[in-house]
Amino acid sequence: MMNKRGQVIVISGPSGVGKGTILKGAMEADKTLAFSVSATTRGPRPGELDGKDYFFVSRERFEEMIAQGELLEHAEYGGNLYGTPRAALEQRLDEGVDVVLDIEIQGARQVMKSFPEALFIFILPPDFETLKKRLTGRGTETPEKVALRLETAKRELGCFNEFEYIIVNDRIEDAVDDFLAIVRAGHCRCSEYIKTDND
Amino acid sequence: MMNKRGQVIVISGPSGVGKGTILKGAMEADKTLAFSVSATTRGPRPGELDGKDYFFVSRERFEEMIAQGELLEHAEYGGNLYGTPRAALEQRLDEGVDVVLDIEIQGARQVMKSFPEALFIFILPPDFETLKKRLTGRGTETPEKVALRLETAKRELGCFNEFEYIIVNDRIEDAVDDFLAIVRAGHCRCSEYIKTDND
Repeated sequence: MMNKRGQVIVISGPSGVGKGTILKGAMEADKTLAFSVSATTRGPRPGELDGKDYFFVSRERFEEMIAQGELLEHAEYGGNLYGTPRAALEQRLDEGVDVVLDIEIQGARQVMKSFPEALFIFILPPDFETLKKRLTGRGTETPEKVALRLETAKRELGCFNEFEYIIVNDRIEDAVDDFLAIVRAGHCRCSEYIKTDND
Repeated sequence: MMNKRGQVIVISGPSGVGKGTILKGAMEADKTLAFSVSATTRGPRPGELDGKDYFFVSRERFEEMIAQGELLEHAEYGGNLYGTPRAALEQRLDEGVDVVLDIEIQGARQVMKSFPEALFIFILPPDFETLKKRLTGRGTETPEKVALRLETAKRELGCFNEFEYIIVNDRIEDAVDDFLAIVRAGHCRCSEYIKTDND
């Protein structure tokens, strides 16, 4: 059987839903999964390596990347630009690595346009009360901040049906197995197969 | 988490490609998988039970079932009609059973029209030589019959890209895992989720 090319996996969902835990479990089980490396205009923090943690670029260069269509998606947070460079990602795909983009909904929507063959996964809580408990239980934020997070979460939950796949994060082991199954099935998609066959 | 409704899984591929072995392995691993029970106009053989092995019906009743749109697909072999009744199948789905239809390509095409939400899986051999060896190696048929089978297989292989998923049956364990992943991922499809949510 021929070597399979990697695929892009977009994972999204409200804060507190457990995306990080699912990805940690999935990556431990499947060593061909890796995070995408983002480009950013913010400066490196101590210990961060260019090309590993981020691609550190100037704002001028970043804007050029946007203009040239070099980014799958981008967004601005806290005065800094962040985005997913296509070239580095394509290289990982060619190496057979499945690349995970853990991004919010606006970013996911951009990838739906720029890279529609990606797998789009939305993580849901078993119910809103559970999410509320998880967000409140962190205890590290003011009630105002928690309220804002809940409001955002509620709005984001309404977008689940824009995604191809849904994982309900009830039992974490099940959610990890769901994730791994979606990735494995993704490689069996006929479109994947035809692409690989022509390589 | 709500109980999931079953889904229809259509599996197709040329004779000798190993569909039966894959399904056997998958059904041992996943007890919520079951074969669809076909309706047929042929008489029961010793030991065959109505409603378990087949629904045994008259030709008149069968033709009525076709006319009333009660069949997902049907075909004629050796002077007898065979088909998949929708009502019995829907009942299994409501019980949460994933129902497998092991059918040839003409039947699969009919299901694509009558039940498009099914999962459509095509099994490919690792290469044509392997399939040839498997078909020839049976040693139970005349060279003419083997040649005809190979001709049919070649024609059928050309239809793989009509299917949503492809499984290359190289190592049987991998093929079974692929099948199980496709079924599990199928339950995570957003469309499945919305359907279940409205139940």
